Parts: sequence; structure tokens; C-alpha cells
Amino acid sequence: MNTVQIKPTPEPTLRRLPLYHQVLIQLKERGVKEVSSTTIANELKLDSVQVRKDIEHVQIVGKPRIGFNIDELILAIEKYLNWDNLTEAFLVGSGHLGFALAGYKNFAKYGLNIIAAFDNDPEKIGTTVHGIPVLDPLKIPDLARRMHIHIGVLAVPAEAAQENADLLIEGGIKGIWNFAPTQIKAPFGIVVENAQLTASLSFLKRKLTEQH
Amino acid sequence: MNTVQIKPTPEPTLRRLPLYHQVLIQLKERGVKEVSSTTIANELKLDSVQVRKDIEHVQIVGKPRIGFNIDELILAIEKYLNWDNLTEAFLVGSGHLGFALAGYKNFAKYGLNIIAAFDNDPEKIGTTVHGIPVLDPLKIPDLARRMHIHIGVLAVPAEAAQENADLLIEGGIKGIWNFAPTQIKAPFGIVVENAQLTASLSFLKRKLTEQH
Repeated sequence: MNTVQIKPTPEPTLRRLPLYHQVLIQLKERGVKEVSSTTIANELKLDSVQVRKDIEHVQIVGKPRIGFNIDELILAIEKYLNWDNLTEAFLVGSGHLGFALAGYKNFAKYGLNIIAAFDNDPEKIGTTVHGIPVLDPLKIPDLARRMHIHIGVLAVPAEAAQENADLLIEGGIKGIWNFAPTQIKAPFGIVVENAQLTASLSFLKRKLTEQH
Repeated sequence: MNTVQIKPTPEPTLRRLPLYHQVLIQLKERGVKEVSSTTIANELKLDSVQVRKDIEHVQIVGKPRIGFNIDELILAIEKYLNWDNLTEAFLVGSGHLGFALAGYKNFAKYGLNIIAAFDNDPEKIGTTVHGIPVLDPLKIPDLARRMHIHIGVLAVPAEAAQENADLLIEGGIKGIWNFAPTQIKAPFGIVVENAQLTASLSFLKRKLTEQH
């Protein structure tokens, strides 16, 4: 990673760009060659002005009244979201969820390469999950520093989340992808992104209560 | 499910309430007995007025200048988010992610009970994952209707998402929790909640690029 200053993208834009990418892949499969902000907006029931502004961040030039070449726009978004840059990561927790994350081949497509897993279960240490070695969490700080690992994926129970996050932070990790259903504290400058599976489930359940 | 009309909660409020719950559990573990909107807001770096308004939806009465009894507030949020009401669900896809979701015991705590899994792999049909039977996806519509299943958890590859969503919808399912990295189309009245793991990962990766 370098230290070039990049203008930050607003969070809502960053959260919508992967959705545009999904829609573009679907449109491409249907044989679409050129696409406008309006088409994407209609597919996602969003405002087309908002979609156009979001795409401006990606720095791609469209043709007036035609829009964007779909392949160029797909590539531009992938590049912008840094999918083409494979980042090595540590996984902490090799229970059911950790096991699945270790084996989820899709992550490579989005630029995440899990190269080691950590679990405090003595029976798991020394084994592998999906070909990835399982090591003692106490080795995290030293290994993360030596291997220049920047992302930690946290898939431990809520009550073990903070202590393992602290090990990652001690190892100089820059970003934590948190799957534990709890809030973790991290110093300024460390990005904590919560996968929030349980919040997503709660949202669905409440919506169903309200509608039916 | 009944047909009583319930005033819909704004989406951002619904997405924040589970986070408040996480903070409350942490505060309770630290021995806190009474909690104010300001305390929760500080923990999450949010605006306290917003937190107070969100909590108003939960319909709990606090004491002036003291706040809420922490146990009462925790319970009120759980009830509001419908965690106390265990909903039976079908899981479609029993690959790595589906396997993990089937075994993720935490979901029961949030009111989701996966009772059957579906996979089109003939070698998997007839087996079980974490004690849950794996059946042929073509049985979804009939079984979902007969068993009055209201939630379908979709953990299939992007290209198989729509066809399996259609089977769930045909079976009268009301809500789809979509783990496939793609957009699915559903008729009006069906709630589609995207788990958006890849969008979450993209967000983290881009943030790291911008900061370092």
C-alpha cells in the first residue's frame, strides 16, 4: 500500500457501486452493450441522478445520449473497488462461519485472499481448513507484521471479538471485517467494517411483521 | 402471521436498532444498570437525538434524567425486532456458505430456524447438513405452501439465484434473505433483504485504499 492521498468517496456511493456492478453483469448476460445511468437506476428502483453522480466517482467517460460501454463500466467499477488488487488476509475463528469464509472462493474475485486462519481450540491448531493452515491466535501480531497483512476477518463469537481484534491491531492490521455480532473498538485510522448478518436478519423479520 | 396493520419503521432506524442492542449487551456486561440515549450514541459515535428518536419506535418509557433500565430496553428491542418469535425458514444452496448458515446456531437467537435445505446436486439430496435434511429444490413450492414457510435463505451462486428465488416465491414465501452476490426480482409485497457480503468487502477494501 502506498501513501498517495485519494479523495474519499461518500459511504452511500461506495455501498451502491457493488450493486451497480451486479446489475451490469446481469444486463451484459442479457446481451446489453451500452448502458445509461437511467437503466441502472430503473433496475434498482433508485434515482437516476444519484446513479449518475455515483458513477462520476469512478471516472469513466460516457457518450452523450448513449451512455457507457457496459464492459468498460464493469471494469472501471472493479478497478475502483480494488477488486483487481488481491489483498492477503488473516481469518480469526474457524468455527462454522469461519470455515465457510475460508472456503468461499468468491472472495478471491473481490480481491481477498485468506492465507492463514487462527483458532484457540488446541485440537484445531496445526490442522488446515480448505487448505489454509490453522494457527494459534497468539501468533497473530508477530505474523501479521512480518507478512505485512492489512486485513483481518473476524469470525469469532461476540465475547471473543475484542481480544482477537486487539491482536490484529497489535499486528498492524489496517482493516477488520467483523462478522461477530458485536461492536469492536479500534484506534482512529483502523477501518472496521461490520458484516452485520444479524442486523440484516432482524431487518427482514421486522419488515415481514409490518407487512403481513 | 396476522394481518394487523403496523406502522412501518424507517429503514435506517431498523438498521440501527440491532447495533443499539449490541452496545446494550456490552454495557450490561460491564455492570451498567441504567442507560441513556446519550450513552448509546457515544458508544456508536452517533447523534443522541437520533438514538432517542429511534428508541421511541420501540415504545418503552424511560425515566427523566436517568434513562432506561438496561434489561427492559434490551428486551423491548428484542421484542420489536421479533427475535422472540422463532420463524421457520428454508435454506436454498448447501455449498460452503449454505453449510455454514445451516450450522450457525446464533440465528436461533434472532428468531430464525432453518428446518430444511435444498440443493440440486443429486449427491447431496437425501443427506443432511448439521442435522437438516437436504431436498430437491423442485419440492420447494409444494413444501413451502404446505408447511407455511415465510422465509427463504438463498445461498446459491449468482447465476442460480433468480430461478431458486422464483421457486420460493411460487411457494408463497414472504421474505428472501439473499446471500447470492446478485440482484433478484420479486413481486411487490415480497421483502428481499440482501446480505451483501461482497458489497461489505468492497467497502472495506476501498476505504483502505483511500486511507493508506
